[in-house]
Amino acid sequence: MRKKIRVVQYGVGPIGAGIVRLMREKQALEIIGAIDRDPEKVGRDLGELVGAPDAPWGIPVSAEAGPVLNRNADIVIHSTSSILKDAAGQLLECLEAGSSVISTCEELAYPFRKYPELSKRLDAKAKEWGVALVGTGVNPGFVMDKLVLTLATVAQRVNAARALRIVDASRRRLPLQKKIGAGLSVAEFREKAAAGVIKHQGLPESVAMVADGLGLPVEDITESIQPVVAEERVTTEFLEVEPGQAAGVHQIACGLGNGKELVRLELKMYVGAKDPCDTIELRGEPDISLTIPGGTHGDVATAAVVVNCIPAILAAPAGLRTARELPMCFFPPNAEP
Amino acid sequence: MRKKIRVVQYGVGPIGAGIVRLMREKQALEIIGAIDRDPEKVGRDLGELVGAPDAPWGIPVSAEAGPVLNRNADIVIHSTSSILKDAAGQLLECLEAGSSVISTCEELAYPFRKYPELSKRLDAKAKEWGVALVGTGVNPGFVMDKLVLTLATVAQRVNAARALRIVDASRRRLPLQKKIGAGLSVAEFREKAAAGVIKHQGLPESVAMVADGLGLPVEDITESIQPVVAEERVTTEFLEVEPGQAAGVHQIACGLGNGKELVRLELKMYVGAKDPCDTIELRGEPDISLTIPGGTHGDVATAAVVVNCIPAILAAPAGLRTARELPMCFFPPNAEP
Repeated sequence: MRKKIRVVQYGVGPIGAGIVRLMREKQALEIIGAIDRDPEKVGRDLGELVGAPDAPWGIPVSAEAGPVLNRNADIVIHSTSSILKDAAGQLLECLEAGSSVISTCEELAYPFRKYPELSKRLDAKAKEWGVALVGTGVNPGFVMDKLVLTLATVAQRVNAARALRIVDASRRRLPLQKKIGAGLSVAEFREKAAAGVIKHQGLPESVAMVADGLGLPVEDITESIQPVVAEERVTTEFLEVEPGQAAGVHQIACGLGNGKELVRLELKMYVGAKDPCDTIELRGEPDISLTIPGGTHGDVATAAVVVNCIPAILAAPAGLRTARELPMCFFPPNAEP
Repeated sequence: MRKKIRVVQYGVGPIGAGIVRLMREKQALEIIGAIDRDPEKVGRDLGELVGAPDAPWGIPVSAEAGPVLNRNADIVIHSTSSILKDAAGQLLECLEAGSSVISTCEELAYPFRKYPELSKRLDAKAKEWGVALVGTGVNPGFVMDKLVLTLATVAQRVNAARALRIVDASRRRLPLQKKIGAGLSVAEFREKAAAGVIKHQGLPESVAMVADGLGLPVEDITESIQPVVAEERVTTEFLEVEPGQAAGVHQIACGLGNGKELVRLELKMYVGAKDPCDTIELRGEPDISLTIPGGTHGDVATAAVVVNCIPAILAAPAGLRTARELPMCFFPPNAEP
């Protein structure tokens, strides 16, 4: 049997914990360390921290990245920030340790427009060390970009693409319900949205990936954010939303070119959403659409996409990669390393 | 500007002609030759043969493969047969000419179970010449295998997979309507099905690809074929089907293991189908499904999948590849070579 794939988890928040639990199920993987600077987590056993039934694992969470990264991991799963400029130092450190990286950092999913220089630097650093990195997850990374491009495989021509994702946030964790402004007054929502506190990151990155993948001449990418206002009282495990309060976000990102809307990605994520689903529509030859009834569950699916991506990123050419170019597939639990 | 990708079309039947027309739209491609042994086609201009508006192209169809393959094509698009043992000699000749190959041969899509020795031989020959080959199309190659595996990207566990494809053959070409037995008596249908004349090829190949991709322990693959019997008169452009006659095929391929049905692929292709669609269902964590309302159009989509696959197969490692491992994406008409 071949040597197992050695993995480090960098960031053990709710998403990181879900990733860790799923990685534990894969025979081909060996988790060799974990990094999180939260004093509540440092020193705790990783298995216990993520609520694994077979804990303890004998893997303490470390505050310092350096010593853990020096253990020569094949891959680091990075899950600390949505904002690339905040994550960049950590990512570079992982690459310099000679490890490939999969990050849930939304802005890394397709960073070329917003961060052209940093994209080049990450690409060059990865190539220098002969490793690959990618930012991915369910959105960005799958339902509003990779799946759009996958559907386009059966199209002879594509003139425009749209995706609509409706997520019922009622059953999601409290931080997410807060992040989307559920329970705020509309005025508070607008204030926090203007300050950038309320926002799902990654839509412009998905627009850019779709535009480039379809060869659509998108010149400008616009983004708007509005509250979904509750029409009736919504009660979740964590909070209550009264009629007239914000129930969540309605975000639209558009890719414009030739005076037309070429790509439109629309996200409605709110508590009490009635008909959650993911829908994609391509206009072209032929017109074609696709629906995932009920939609993909954000946290479950992000952990799945990240872990399923491990074989692909290890097989990818060195450099900064994107979901666009990786063959996405399932990572069977019994797969060999 | 970089040198264009040099392409040869091997087989100019209805599918091959559709592929050729689509390839002509891609700036990155240069069609440098065409092969077909049909005396009705030999010597004719390829553009005229495929009904291109900008014909003639100055590319005569050749009966002999050798001289065309010796023109040093980067890739040969091969579309002559559904049966791998009939196509193998042609495929080997393409590889020996140093060209990568995309073939619509259904049995090549995932040939390892039915043709273990021939698979090894094709893989070795491709590696010897530093080129890659793949069998693909819409089915097998996309809706009942690659798309199943793509959807599984958002799953943490998959216990079983099903796909149902319902195709309305009314608007398809006459050879296809005949191939599925439309207009035959049920007795004639059963006779021809038993003789292997009526059959959509490729379902067992898709079952095997899905099983391997999901890590499901499929030991046996079964296949059945029944007529869809018309309940009312159906009139197409080419033929009439009376009530009680066969309107088309109902094929089911199953992957069995551990005493369970782990993969089930069901194809209903008949004239007068009321609700054409492609549907995928995964059982696991979570259960998830996907629908393409109206379904993908077989001929249009096969040409699309084949042409869209060109960049991926040229970038793939040498050897016998499958859709499972290739990043499927759109090939923009304005993409650079």
